[in-house]
Amino acid sequence: MNTLDNSLIDKLKEFLTDHQVTTNKTILEQHGKDESYHGSSSPDLVVFPESADEVSAIVKVADEHNTPIIPFGLGTSLEGHIIPYDHGITIDFSLMNKVLEVREKDFLVKVQPGVTRSMLNKELKKYGLFFTVDPGADATLGGMAATNASGTTSVKYGVMRDQVRDLEVVLADGEIIHTGNLAQKSSSGYNLNSLMVGSEGTLGCITELTLKVYGIPEHIVAARASFETVGDAVEAVVSILQAGIPIARVELVDELSMTQVNLFNDTNYREKPTLFLEFHGNEAGLKSDVEFTKEIVSDHRCEEIYFEEDNAARNKLWEARHNLAYAYVHGNPGKKLMVTDVCVPISELAGAIQYARSQVEKLELNGGILGHVGDGNYHVLLMIDMNDAEEVKKADQFNEQIVEYALQRNGTCTGEHGVGVGKMKYQHQEHGRALQVMEKIKLALDPKEILNPHKLVHMKRRNR
Amino acid sequence: MNTLDNSLIDKLKEFLTDHQVTTNKTILEQHGKDESYHGSSSPDLVVFPESADEVSAIVKVADEHNTPIIPFGLGTSLEGHIIPYDHGITIDFSLMNKVLEVREKDFLVKVQPGVTRSMLNKELKKYGLFFTVDPGADATLGGMAATNASGTTSVKYGVMRDQVRDLEVVLADGEIIHTGNLAQKSSSGYNLNSLMVGSEGTLGCITELTLKVYGIPEHIVAARASFETVGDAVEAVVSILQAGIPIARVELVDELSMTQVNLFNDTNYREKPTLFLEFHGNEAGLKSDVEFTKEIVSDHRCEEIYFEEDNAARNKLWEARHNLAYAYVHGNPGKKLMVTDVCVPISELAGAIQYARSQVEKLELNGGILGHVGDGNYHVLLMIDMNDAEEVKKADQFNEQIVEYALQRNGTCTGEHGVGVGKMKYQHQEHGRALQVMEKIKLALDPKEILNPHKLVHMKRRNR
Repeated sequence: MNTLDNSLIDKLKEFLTDHQVTTNKTILEQHGKDESYHGSSSPDLVVFPESADEVSAIVKVADEHNTPIIPFGLGTSLEGHIIPYDHGITIDFSLMNKVLEVREKDFLVKVQPGVTRSMLNKELKKYGLFFTVDPGADATLGGMAATNASGTTSVKYGVMRDQVRDLEVVLADGEIIHTGNLAQKSSSGYNLNSLMVGSEGTLGCITELTLKVYGIPEHIVAARASFETVGDAVEAVVSILQAGIPIARVELVDELSMTQVNLFNDTNYREKPTLFLEFHGNEAGLKSDVEFTKEIVSDHRCEEIYFEEDNAARNKLWEARHNLAYAYVHGNPGKKLMVTDVCVPISELAGAIQYARSQVEKLELNGGILGHVGDGNYHVLLMIDMNDAEEVKKADQFNEQIVEYALQRNGTCTGEHGVGVGKMKYQHQEHGRALQVMEKIKLALDPKEILNPHKLVHMKRRNR
Repeated sequence: MNTLDNSLIDKLKEFLTDHQVTTNKTILEQHGKDESYHGSSSPDLVVFPESADEVSAIVKVADEHNTPIIPFGLGTSLEGHIIPYDHGITIDFSLMNKVLEVREKDFLVKVQPGVTRSMLNKELKKYGLFFTVDPGADATLGGMAATNASGTTSVKYGVMRDQVRDLEVVLADGEIIHTGNLAQKSSSGYNLNSLMVGSEGTLGCITELTLKVYGIPEHIVAARASFETVGDAVEAVVSILQAGIPIARVELVDELSMTQVNLFNDTNYREKPTLFLEFHGNEAGLKSDVEFTKEIVSDHRCEEIYFEEDNAARNKLWEARHNLAYAYVHGNPGKKLMVTDVCVPISELAGAIQYARSQVEKLELNGGILGHVGDGNYHVLLMIDMNDAEEVKKADQFNEQIVEYALQRNGTCTGEHGVGVGKMKYQHQEHGRALQVMEKIKLALDPKEILNPHKLVHMKRRNR
């Protein structure tokens, strides 16, 4: 116990049961790390609230005691977002895991923050609906909103921010607010939905989400297309987008990563730069889109393209792509995964990926490239031995190089993983004077800086 | 001159030419009213900057003199947004009207705030691109961003907020920031794009916008379908949406308004509740969508449906719909237009429109209904004699009734027109404690409240 006194625990136990408050060392440690390479640090205490009122009461106690609060979903973040470097109280939302309401006619669903995307999709399937955002990991929806997650489908359906119609949020003083409403459009007041989405727990704790859902498409076609070079593959995607073909997913997996895919999934796909594609629509429309796509990829030296309309075959294809990060981790025991996450304007993507590939080779790092190329967002998966200071240094240097490249071209240091602690050092360069606006907002809404301190924006160290 | 001293004008003239600063009475009066029924009030001064640096210098002078700043596009707002009730300096952006850059491959365009949507679309046509947001009026893009405008196409392409990739904004202290970047996705820092869009000039002056554009669709089909009742028409739309048919526009025009359409446009459309529809896509896909739509509307007692594939016929159809507000104004000389703007969850729309119709009749008001029904947003166009106190009172009462109805069903008091002065009285009821968050943000970013004071959020009167 570093920062907590016993009176704080006593106060919490006035409204929480013994099972809802723990200082068990194993549980503390579980809440001290995420899926990234960032160093761990345990909270003093983990609480498991069951309602917004309990969250509000917890935050009020923390406020009185000037103690940090860290909201925690499932710990799948990739930039250390949930690591309590200042210790304090981690709020674990796993007991708030109910799908509260499905509003079919409104294409809306109301959920608690601990619901994961697979839990939600299981429930929605009964209604012929689905939730679009798919970051790979089976993250909680609260966590996905906190980091503005996205993934393979955002080229068609948008990112997490585009799905949020309303949030219930507990503020730093324990007040409970709603940031939106259930209407499809609103020009009423400042847009707090979008401010809270991506604020990484630094402005409030999300205790309920109303999210947009979609009808399961009438028809889906998936495809896998391999190319001679990464440049060809990226140029093909640009041409597909310019042709106005409404692709629902388009993922690039490079040569090295295809080898990992084959090893881990027992497939024998061609080990060449490959696009995984998916098209949603009506049958007649898709047929025309597919024909057009074939023409376009062949103009870009596509070596082979396979289409899968069958559900099981399609799932197998996407599973292979989805398992890629795990394939790397599995294939490199003892090493940690460092994933870069820059995003650039599409016109700059081919150059950015070629630059990244050349720097990986120059620095003799071990890393594959995959990308949500329809969005201009790509990842380099680096497997790092954290005990090898030289390797860690080279990986950091690499990350800096590609961020620099992206920012010079009006891109961003993080397309979908968020800032956490890992991307804080780039915030000034990326946002310039706008960073001061962010700091002013943080200060106005959390003057004591108790909400996930030292994440996202650099503030003066708060008084203890 | 109420609030200005001569030293302020002298300071402005240090960096602005005589043509860029005016106290001409006619020009002041032109900047003292918008297209709404709200009372007019003139600024003390109108300035016409040509660059962000000039805007910054103007705001710095205003800051020193504690003088209000009102950003002004073309004055097409509908809730008094640009009326300077505290007088001060109106910044007219009409000289900042250049399309700066078309980034074809990135589907982005960079414009100055005084560019209107028709100017932009004229330029984009050369590239086979178009800008989607269409609020009816040929507003400036700066103004449209300031109010988060939308319109007939938002059911498919989203509202203004969805199009903004980056803004250059001059803050209350004259600092110039960028709120975003050119990448399609970003999880870096608080989302200032969405905060600035819809902030109605109360947080900063927009001096440049980077906006998303789309390829002109391969194929477009428009349709006009008439129904026995408004309820039938709305239910048909709900069914079309549930079927997953990707309509690009769907507008409802009621019986009364169809009469105005015919009178003004010299058409002889059936004077029944009518849907104007539009479909964008590839030819094969649209054929299938159109057939499906025919089936659905016939299930909802559609009396007749006409399709128009020809460009000229399609334009004529939409022109009739677009001219509706002007048709009312034209047909009611001497009266002022009061347009309501509530938006409700789609499942509540049929009930909301029926309620509105019954209240219009009960209060014996003169008003037609039209709506962006795909979004749950509808307008009642009331023609009011502002000299008839009883009629004004009844119109206000009606507005309150339908706002109340919408808020009780988790809707919003304004779907697309914004708050301005007209919707301020509903902000507390709509946002509850979230309004305090908005006030804190306003105070943090504009502590002297010089930016469009007394709009959007109620603040304590600033010190003079």
